[in-house]
Amino acid sequence: MDKRIIANIKTLGIDMIHEAESGHPGIVLGAAPILYTLFSRHMCINKDDASWMNRDRFILSAGHGSALLYATFYMAGLGYSLEDLKCFRQINAKTAGHPEYGVSPFVEATTGPLGQGIAMATGMALGGKILGERYQTSDNTKLFDYYVYVLCGDGDLMEGISAEAMSFAGTHQLDNLIVLYDSNQISLDGKTHTTFTENVLQRCAACNWHTIEVDGEDIDAIDLAIQEAKTVNKPTIIQCNTTIGKGSFLEGKNTVHGKPLSIEDIANIKQLHSILDEPFYVDFEAKQTFTDIIYKRSLHKYQKFTDIYHQFILENPEREIELTSFMHNQEISIDEIDFSFPTEEESTRVSNGKVMNEIAKMSPFFLGGSADLSSSTMTYLKDMGDISCHSYLGKNIWFGVREHAMGAILNGLALTNFKVFGSTFLVFSDYLRPAIRLSALMHLSIFYIFTHDSIEVGEDGPTHEPIEQLASLRAIPNTLVFRPCDTREIIGSWKYALKKKCPSIFALSRGNVPLLSSSDIDKVSLGAYVVRKEKQNLSGTIVASGTEVSKAIKVAEMLERENNLFFRVVSMPCLNIFKNMSKSYQQEVLGDTTIFVMEAGSSCGLEGISTSTKTLLTIDTFGRSGKKQDVMKALAFTEEQLKRRILDVYGVKHEK
Amino acid sequence: MDKRIIANIKTLGIDMIHEAESGHPGIVLGAAPILYTLFSRHMCINKDDASWMNRDRFILSAGHGSALLYATFYMAGLGYSLEDLKCFRQINAKTAGHPEYGVSPFVEATTGPLGQGIAMATGMALGGKILGERYQTSDNTKLFDYYVYVLCGDGDLMEGISAEAMSFAGTHQLDNLIVLYDSNQISLDGKTHTTFTENVLQRCAACNWHTIEVDGEDIDAIDLAIQEAKTVNKPTIIQCNTTIGKGSFLEGKNTVHGKPLSIEDIANIKQLHSILDEPFYVDFEAKQTFTDIIYKRSLHKYQKFTDIYHQFILENPEREIELTSFMHNQEISIDEIDFSFPTEEESTRVSNGKVMNEIAKMSPFFLGGSADLSSSTMTYLKDMGDISCHSYLGKNIWFGVREHAMGAILNGLALTNFKVFGSTFLVFSDYLRPAIRLSALMHLSIFYIFTHDSIEVGEDGPTHEPIEQLASLRAIPNTLVFRPCDTREIIGSWKYALKKKCPSIFALSRGNVPLLSSSDIDKVSLGAYVVRKEKQNLSGTIVASGTEVSKAIKVAEMLERENNLFFRVVSMPCLNIFKNMSKSYQQEVLGDTTIFVMEAGSSCGLEGISTSTKTLLTIDTFGRSGKKQDVMKALAFTEEQLKRRILDVYGVKHEK
Repeated sequence: MDKRIIANIKTLGIDMIHEAESGHPGIVLGAAPILYTLFSRHMCINKDDASWMNRDRFILSAGHGSALLYATFYMAGLGYSLEDLKCFRQINAKTAGHPEYGVSPFVEATTGPLGQGIAMATGMALGGKILGERYQTSDNTKLFDYYVYVLCGDGDLMEGISAEAMSFAGTHQLDNLIVLYDSNQISLDGKTHTTFTENVLQRCAACNWHTIEVDGEDIDAIDLAIQEAKTVNKPTIIQCNTTIGKGSFLEGKNTVHGKPLSIEDIANIKQLHSILDEPFYVDFEAKQTFTDIIYKRSLHKYQKFTDIYHQFILENPEREIELTSFMHNQEISIDEIDFSFPTEEESTRVSNGKVMNEIAKMSPFFLGGSADLSSSTMTYLKDMGDISCHSYLGKNIWFGVREHAMGAILNGLALTNFKVFGSTFLVFSDYLRPAIRLSALMHLSIFYIFTHDSIEVGEDGPTHEPIEQLASLRAIPNTLVFRPCDTREIIGSWKYALKKKCPSIFALSRGNVPLLSSSDIDKVSLGAYVVRKEKQNLSGTIVASGTEVSKAIKVAEMLERENNLFFRVVSMPCLNIFKNMSKSYQQEVLGDTTIFVMEAGSSCGLEGISTSTKTLLTIDTFGRSGKKQDVMKALAFTEEQLKRRILDVYGVKHEK
Repeated sequence: MDKRIIANIKTLGIDMIHEAESGHPGIVLGAAPILYTLFSRHMCINKDDASWMNRDRFILSAGHGSALLYATFYMAGLGYSLEDLKCFRQINAKTAGHPEYGVSPFVEATTGPLGQGIAMATGMALGGKILGERYQTSDNTKLFDYYVYVLCGDGDLMEGISAEAMSFAGTHQLDNLIVLYDSNQISLDGKTHTTFTENVLQRCAACNWHTIEVDGEDIDAIDLAIQEAKTVNKPTIIQCNTTIGKGSFLEGKNTVHGKPLSIEDIANIKQLHSILDEPFYVDFEAKQTFTDIIYKRSLHKYQKFTDIYHQFILENPEREIELTSFMHNQEISIDEIDFSFPTEEESTRVSNGKVMNEIAKMSPFFLGGSADLSSSTMTYLKDMGDISCHSYLGKNIWFGVREHAMGAILNGLALTNFKVFGSTFLVFSDYLRPAIRLSALMHLSIFYIFTHDSIEVGEDGPTHEPIEQLASLRAIPNTLVFRPCDTREIIGSWKYALKKKCPSIFALSRGNVPLLSSSDIDKVSLGAYVVRKEKQNLSGTIVASGTEVSKAIKVAEMLERENNLFFRVVSMPCLNIFKNMSKSYQQEVLGDTTIFVMEAGSSCGLEGISTSTKTLLTIDTFGRSGKKQDVMKALAFTEEQLKRRILDVYGVKHEK
């Protein structure tokens, strides 16, 4: 029966690809036995409750194997109809080209960009360890004890992000993480020996992983390996030696990787597996058997979870609300927090650290860490402990200098209902963009804290001074970039961000800023608002964000005092929000006048607000190394220079 | 004397940091013996000819150790004065906050963003292997036989990019690459054991590296290790066990990493090393000794190189021009190439592949590869061989699924005067942004070929469909993004790009486009130009790029035929160039009318051209999975829909 089920998964997969005229048959034929073994012998997942919190997670890191995944789900009775398979890769289908979280049922994470899956799985496994330690009954029975399984290919392991995540997983002893490595030594461009000759298992062992090697066709061996993995206190990688496109005329060749097979080849494969040569043939007996096996095992675990849950609540009635809110992935509301405000100038990174500490005190699920910069980004949660292999009870994660894995691990934790943040310098946001993009695509509410947000970094020079980062982050769809000017706007940004199903980026300053008398917590939700009204006859408006807001006010004061020009200053903590406000609100805020935009970064994305290129007080060249004031001067960004740049515009107008 | 020199390097380094009130003393005190050993016993570098092509390269991957580097250079007589040291981290100083290529003499690459240095060094080492095999005299003496040395820290090795590069270096047997690993088990946030417990040497061994472990204070041991490294046919990593901030009161603590030391501590360290306690004290005898050692050894090698060079030219007079042009890093001119043009519609990725093959035939130094997507990006150079450990004579590099390392390796090759390209899908440009940023910062002429440049990718879905990538790449300072519409514009883009000291990005289509009768090779240099004139009374202008140009022309034809509206179409192959053209040229091209911008990507950066947000025919949401036409329709991007969106604008106007 095992063989019949595997054969049917394979033929359905290649039929889907044939029908779609698009897809990746190589992995379907090569890795079907691995996926079948995992699902038939290990996965605990409830077909009637896809979001059951203690379900095992399966991540197809090799996301191009989506046909294999959907075919397996179909045969396992997990949320897919034959019609769904027939619509593979068609618009509006559940069976999206690559597995899409929120679109494709039972898909735990959107995958496709290689390496991300392993790293997100690492986050889910870490989440499992945290939950396991947090929620135990009096007899030390864990409420949460799920496993996270990954199927990955050579491509995943070549990506640096997987090396980062695996090193992290090894250090953190994530023994609930089991990676099945589909080792077929073929990638899109050919044999991997041309470029990938490392000893993967040895590399993993060096990173404190348990390693096992098996024949990828031998389901008993795979089963035993998974069993063994569950007995060790390390993450495990099981290298399954497979043949890409097994059974196809193109078996073992890179040409079988990413194109539909010929009709003759499909017929050949079906004959090989004694499957009737008709499109989408289903062996319903096989399907029922597979479905039943999983259901029966899972139901047992599901009921056990329910029992433990009730026992836990009985023993800890005061924690029921917490647990329920977690399982329902409820938003954090910070309306009740009585935040304090600084009495002296301080940097927004420092102010933000204080705000975050208050939020963390209120929500047990608000946690995160830094890519080895917490002493600079100020995101450490004081007196709330660290998360390490010695104890997962804390709230501070030490990601190491691994920005990219940090982003993906945050994705994994958010997919496990944690409210998470990660921090680094704004300029290094470039290192984790692919992970942020996935946060956005999956509608995950994640908080990226990026400090040292402009050339005011000074001495560290251009490699550490962001220029294009604000613009390029704002350009990511479904992403909010906040650049608050003081504590009030920081609080407002958090209030807004915590309610949104999207990643929120906080760009924060290294240098001190004053608490403005006119800043407003609630008006952050408008994207931009007036922080300084013109005294009379509006001469112009300066739109600014972050550190530049207080600077703009000073410039406006100079212009009034020295030049009798009356400027309005608009603080724009979030361009993304402001752009989506009504035209009338935008006009009301900006005024019917010359509009300047002052931001210590790229003009890209700000032209829509600025009256012309001349009124863009921005920086489109790289920064410099030197004292903050000298760098500002070199880039024409001191208050005096900014004032002159504004006056120049009026000078030109005057001459007309 | 060794000790005296090392001591003086250390005290100068901490004096610099004290004077600058900024910098990283930890590595100065911890790694000075390593750097001293390397420079005094191995480096061949000519103080009078910094760009000597056969010099050994040293890359400070841990770029924050710049004070150590400059102090060493000063003591070694390499291009720095005491005054330079006193201006450390000040504006316009040679002694920039992090080592800057082109600013700081003898600095081979800009470093600071961790991990990049190792990967760039990998590129330089690969360059060395290519040169070594290409240029040999009749008795097999290599003209180029330099070594590439790297000093890296824990942070570098945590970054995924270093794992990618090291796996590549191992596979390619870059035995001229020697990494000195300053292993102090401390990073900015604390001890590395919280997050970095892997066995680095074992991991490297798994990647086909030779590994050695030494005491980082023992200069003879370090020397011997480097000698040993030179005897094996693999890259070598030498783990030098050090103590961060050695001799400081803060020795061994993370607090010594990144802040100036106290005056008391500086006095203490000077006393410890018997150095006079005065600022910037120099032991001139020590300085002279160090300078002489390096100079003497290097001069010998330098003269030998000159001899071999002459012998080579004598034996191969026909290759003198080639070699000279290479050593002078001369531009490639393609004016003489007689390119052919397609007679049928074809994708710009295919057209570009043909153009690149022609360029490659002409220049021996034009080479590159793909991150395992050459069969999709079409950048394979036919009949020009592969670069592998078996032979470095070819021109195609197999980077593997390692976009980030690819970018950095390209940087390393470009720093070695090669004219290089790398390719992947546009959406995955996110994986290598930090490397592209360094290409731009270092003014390197590198060609990034990014194909599958829009939602027309279709079935692969949103993970594979770029939206924000064009905008975010255009926002990088000193970077050109070309999105040519056909073969003529591709040729024009190359003509322009090959002459510029900056990275050039080519965004190319998966789908077919026609060769336009009105497209123009030379007008690419204007950034944008008219490809379709309005028949009469200009109704509006559509600015488009790439695939959208022929689409815009069709829409314009429909509008003329069906609605009697007369549209001009402007092709804009390079927004970056167009933005810098004169206002009068811009106005001449765009016309005094309503200006639409049609681009299958983010509106960010295009608002400056478009008349209003309503005239932006762009896509600010993620793509979808489905057939190309269905995806286009879902995102309102079919020709019919685009026409209607344009008519809507006129309808609104009409109603006014």
